[in-house]
Amino acid sequence: MAIALPRIDVAREFLDELLRVSASEGGGVIRIAYGQGEQEAHEALRAIGSKYGFPVEQDFAGNTYVRLKGRDSAAKCVVIGSHLDSVPHGGNYDGALGVAIGLAAIAGIAASGRTLERDVLVMGVRAEESCYFPAPYIGSRMALGDLPAHTFNSLKRSDTGRSLADHMQELGFDPAAVLRGERHLSADTVACYLEAHIEQGPVLENEGIPLGIVQAIAGGPRWREGRIYGTYAHAGGAPKGYRQDAVAALGEFIHEVNLLWDRFHEQGIYTLFTFGIIGTVPEMHTYSRVPGEARFCLDTRCIDTDVRVRIGQEIDKIAQAISARHGVTFEWGADSGPNISPMAPDMQAGLHSAAERLGVPCKAMASGAGHDASAFADLGIPSAMLFVRNQHGSHNKDETVQMEDVQLGASVLAEFLCSTFGQDSRG
Amino acid sequence: MAIALPRIDVAREFLDELLRVSASEGGGVIRIAYGQGEQEAHEALRAIGSKYGFPVEQDFAGNTYVRLKGRDSAAKCVVIGSHLDSVPHGGNYDGALGVAIGLAAIAGIAASGRTLERDVLVMGVRAEESCYFPAPYIGSRMALGDLPAHTFNSLKRSDTGRSLADHMQELGFDPAAVLRGERHLSADTVACYLEAHIEQGPVLENEGIPLGIVQAIAGGPRWREGRIYGTYAHAGGAPKGYRQDAVAALGEFIHEVNLLWDRFHEQGIYTLFTFGIIGTVPEMHTYSRVPGEARFCLDTRCIDTDVRVRIGQEIDKIAQAISARHGVTFEWGADSGPNISPMAPDMQAGLHSAAERLGVPCKAMASGAGHDASAFADLGIPSAMLFVRNQHGSHNKDETVQMEDVQLGASVLAEFLCSTFGQDSRG
Repeated sequence: MAIALPRIDVAREFLDELLRVSASEGGGVIRIAYGQGEQEAHEALRAIGSKYGFPVEQDFAGNTYVRLKGRDSAAKCVVIGSHLDSVPHGGNYDGALGVAIGLAAIAGIAASGRTLERDVLVMGVRAEESCYFPAPYIGSRMALGDLPAHTFNSLKRSDTGRSLADHMQELGFDPAAVLRGERHLSADTVACYLEAHIEQGPVLENEGIPLGIVQAIAGGPRWREGRIYGTYAHAGGAPKGYRQDAVAALGEFIHEVNLLWDRFHEQGIYTLFTFGIIGTVPEMHTYSRVPGEARFCLDTRCIDTDVRVRIGQEIDKIAQAISARHGVTFEWGADSGPNISPMAPDMQAGLHSAAERLGVPCKAMASGAGHDASAFADLGIPSAMLFVRNQHGSHNKDETVQMEDVQLGASVLAEFLCSTFGQDSRG
Repeated sequence: MAIALPRIDVAREFLDELLRVSASEGGGVIRIAYGQGEQEAHEALRAIGSKYGFPVEQDFAGNTYVRLKGRDSAAKCVVIGSHLDSVPHGGNYDGALGVAIGLAAIAGIAASGRTLERDVLVMGVRAEESCYFPAPYIGSRMALGDLPAHTFNSLKRSDTGRSLADHMQELGFDPAAVLRGERHLSADTVACYLEAHIEQGPVLENEGIPLGIVQAIAGGPRWREGRIYGTYAHAGGAPKGYRQDAVAALGEFIHEVNLLWDRFHEQGIYTLFTFGIIGTVPEMHTYSRVPGEARFCLDTRCIDTDVRVRIGQEIDKIAQAISARHGVTFEWGADSGPNISPMAPDMQAGLHSAAERLGVPCKAMASGAGHDASAFADLGIPSAMLFVRNQHGSHNKDETVQMEDVQLGASVLAEFLCSTFGQDSRG
């Protein structure tokens, strides 16, 4: 059977409409979670779904679903999702592209006259960017009944200071359903979850490959409140051998962690190490004082649970040696790092096969960044992600993507759906 | 001739009176430059000078002088000085002890019936602590006619925001004389300058030696506005090899500078390296972003001009290698580091001889911290410093010193004065 060509025109129409409703005068787009831009993006999804003849629904949390009906609507469905919110002055593609690709795929499949064996839902997810409400995957986790009440109740939006419940209620959604732990989606009703997303990084662009197939969404220890305590002293009065210099210790710590990264890299083991925040203490520091305290935030990421354990052990060893050498003490605070979310091996294989059949080069790769797919995978729903090559990273107004790469992504997705859930196959 | 025993009771009386007038409820003493505590300290100096029969004078800047008349008052005088201001909640000895030791020495000489060949002035200096007016050695430099008008006019006190001129005028001093470049002291009228001071560091205490004789007051490059620029990137999206991480570069820079310090130390070359302030940029940093900018303040100190040049060269070499390795750029800003002020070799030798004659152990050492002696030495006035062992550093309320060590310091000073300027010798 011939392939189901995706309706890339539908993807473009959706993306153009998003830009129209959320472009900001300051550059880029603004689609604040449970704010106006996000709300209009969901209305745009509803409108385009209806326009092309698909039933559209919304759950208690405001996530929007466009349904491609299959032969057996009682069978577990396939969800193709991504988020429609954006960081302030972010790009139009981070998140929204996954929904656009889903729309292009189901519109192409519908246009080809095929009927899949089960329903496919293209899901516009709410509130993925944690800059607004400081918790990961809020929209997906509410749909999955997996956002604990105490977390939900603690969430206030960074710009308004108002609670998530308040913002939801204002838009007509149902915070009480979240508190009751209601589930709109679950492992009992969802066969698998698929998410296309811009890569956000430079790897595909640099290697000249249009698509990536994600092996796992990375996790790892993350210490946001790290402290090194030494002793404040007069910079002129404390000579070598008489100092417990917290910054000298931090400098060596940063350097040693980067050498550890070199060793992982040489062994071909995927890891990421980032000191996103460091600093002396403004109330105490001055040019002429040996610093008695230094603060750091260390974020590590990997895709293998054994490596995760090793990272913790190796960093502990480094810190112990530095403590002894510099006479300082480390305080770590809580480890707030996420779990590793492996993508389903058979779905990865299916996507590779689909790409191969279409002659589209693709690369198996880690996702260093978190995605809604994590929320589904963590509940045991087989999940997979397709990265699309893009330019200028993400979370900035210069973020971009080439439409021919979007087309390749949508084609592979449609081919995967048809081959896995077509009438001649069983998923 | 027997030695002239210093009148340690006079030193103690002066120090007790300072404590009485400037002790703070919050701990330690508060003697703000051109503020109440400093003013009362100068009044205390005037009172004790008069009480013990010495003429007392004050210059246009408010520095106070207690005069031990010599045989020839027209000859160049000897100045024994130190400052009477303190940092907020500092100790009672930083600065004031040098004046107390000067008083004990001249009172002892007077009591012994000796007349030296020239006058000795015990000078209470104003405004040495740069926390109030951000410039070094303000009181001494005004006395020496060496505070440029543009600097003088720019100085505002950190707590009041009012100008130095304003504060001087309020106390009856003469800012116009400063602007005219008047000199109360100069190389034409001062034979030499002597300053006793608590060590402020742990070296003498640790080595069990009561006195230090200063070789030089350290200087060296100081970059207060250092910047490393890389590229901001998503911590999950930018893998190894795709980052220009400003913090990774800064960590390596700190580490390499400390290795450079190790090399100097192994060669027996006195240096100090302090990163007193470091940090990412609060408006931009977050745990999940590779930092595109890191800031640092690097203070270096040494007592040899060749070493000063080497420090600049070596640090430049380190920064160039790190720039290449990390793809970052360094910006240094102005080098605001002070000159090195060597102490007069014959005065150092004279102090060592005096100590040896009295059987007092002493150590030749650098002064990492700046002192008023710098202002005199920099104008070609032969200068020397005597460090007294003290406990708990300085610039804090726990700073202390043992009176038996003060006695040793005053004895060495008196012996030096008698042997150098006694009637049987020529200075």
